[in-house]
Amino acid sequence: MTKEDLTSCYERIKPYIHNTPILTSKLINTLVGAELYFKCENFQRAGAYKIRGATNAILQLSKTQLQNGVVTHSSGNFAQALALAAKSLNIKAYIVMPSNSPSVKKNAVLEYGGEVVECEPTLEARQDAANQIANTTGATFIHPSNNLDVILGQGTSGLELLKEHPSLDYIFCPIGGGGLIAGTALAATHFSNHCKVVGGEPMEADDAYRSLISGKIETNRTTNTIADGLRTHLGSHNFPIIKAYVKQIIRVSETEIIEAMQLIWERMKIIIEPSSAVAFAAILKEKETFKNQKIGVIISGGNVDIHNLPF
Amino acid sequence: MTKEDLTSCYERIKPYIHNTPILTSKLINTLVGAELYFKCENFQRAGAYKIRGATNAILQLSKTQLQNGVVTHSSGNFAQALALAAKSLNIKAYIVMPSNSPSVKKNAVLEYGGEVVECEPTLEARQDAANQIANTTGATFIHPSNNLDVILGQGTSGLELLKEHPSLDYIFCPIGGGGLIAGTALAATHFSNHCKVVGGEPMEADDAYRSLISGKIETNRTTNTIADGLRTHLGSHNFPIIKAYVKQIIRVSETEIIEAMQLIWERMKIIIEPSSAVAFAAILKEKETFKNQKIGVIISGGNVDIHNLPF
Repeated sequence: MTKEDLTSCYERIKPYIHNTPILTSKLINTLVGAELYFKCENFQRAGAYKIRGATNAILQLSKTQLQNGVVTHSSGNFAQALALAAKSLNIKAYIVMPSNSPSVKKNAVLEYGGEVVECEPTLEARQDAANQIANTTGATFIHPSNNLDVILGQGTSGLELLKEHPSLDYIFCPIGGGGLIAGTALAATHFSNHCKVVGGEPMEADDAYRSLISGKIETNRTTNTIADGLRTHLGSHNFPIIKAYVKQIIRVSETEIIEAMQLIWERMKIIIEPSSAVAFAAILKEKETFKNQKIGVIISGGNVDIHNLPF
Repeated sequence: MTKEDLTSCYERIKPYIHNTPILTSKLINTLVGAELYFKCENFQRAGAYKIRGATNAILQLSKTQLQNGVVTHSSGNFAQALALAAKSLNIKAYIVMPSNSPSVKKNAVLEYGGEVVECEPTLEARQDAANQIANTTGATFIHPSNNLDVILGQGTSGLELLKEHPSLDYIFCPIGGGGLIAGTALAATHFSNHCKVVGGEPMEADDAYRSLISGKIETNRTTNTIADGLRTHLGSHNFPIIKAYVKQIIRVSETEIIEAMQLIWERMKIIIEPSSAVAFAAILKEKETFKNQKIGVIISGGNVDIHNLPF
């Protein structure tokens, strides 16, 4: 994945995404002892960075493929993102969702014009249902994180961050399926000569941390984390990129995630979802290590049920 | 109050305030049928527009006055704002607060270095306590809304909005004590040739609406509104400006305020306080009237207890 791949991806998706604002807070800088630049993908279309990758993946399809639409399985932000990207590009999207997904999430997909297909709440059932739709309708399966076009698209958030703040020493982002951090690592590699990418991961779903140690893709032993976007594991396409370019993964506890989330809500007055707080929690935890550094933080999304908050 | 008064006020306070971001939302525009520009004073220092007026009032004091500090009475955002403005300018601030103020509000003032003086929870006791401090310490009393320097300062938010979007047809803002809307009306008068200012006010504290009808300052019969910043009434300095330049006041119910607040939280992913939602609620209520107009909306603040939300 070259610099040109990333640049042309960005040009391709630019008309369909927001160049999200980058916010700063003196108070938080003082608290952390570093200069933080929050890239607010919670203000992105459909409330998360996922629309970037979804849009790029669709725009790479052939005319015939476009006619048959796309299919994915996701109970989270990629479901909404693919539905909205498909709607913007006038194609059909089938979204396989576990039958126990909250109705608010199903409704969001329906609102964006996606066709919801319910399945049993297991990873296997999700994949089977998606395969079956692909086979019967000819729709192209687009994986939420383990797809090179998706990875490139997700990297454009880091690219925008580095274009505006080229002297960043670090970019922190959360790790779930690995699409965002792989894309961000590509952006840092190609658009900075010194910026390092660090991942934040919940202790309770620390597959990526263990994968970097063992050198192979590990799965989660538990997924008992409030960071619902980070319960998945890495994939064959993003893991080699992460292995090559991600400097470090910092694990944080559930309490640390909730405290970081509350701090951003109260001090920055923006709504971020628990998964987004994980990157900031990692900085808070290791603030001595990152003292006086210039740090970009990708606030991955803001889709949270405001009727059911952890504080 | 001339255009030059406003311009020189802005130049004076600029180093001490944020030029806050202006956000838009396609989804909300579609819902309302108009083009809305949200001026996000919830991202302002101390979480509300109040620091603008507080800073301007302090910067107009003489050297002797500065030595003796300032005093105000407020249980809300002006308390924090004056404390922080005084701290930034290295002077002393006495803040009279009702003894039943939530400790989170007192702590915020203390955090900014203000001296909290408690009093009985009546308007009279507040004014008496402030007068006594002024008499014994020589501190200058600064009223939260009925002070021309404060009014000018509060007008700089509308000024920034019009500088960036000179073609706005309307600016909506909430009305409480009248400082914000009077300042905004001055900004619209001097920096646009057609922009009209409209106020949003809770039904449950509709003193300003009734004042415009009767032609004299009315007080509130009830203050039973969730919009805690809007429970006060107009004053002798701001009422003549409001009478001369404010086009209309639209009253909204408590349900309309909460629904508007929730819509902004969920769709724009920003934290706004109930008082801020009142202006947007007024637009929603009368959306047929404002169809296809370009409307600025001043989001006055984001200081809300996230442990105690109305939804």
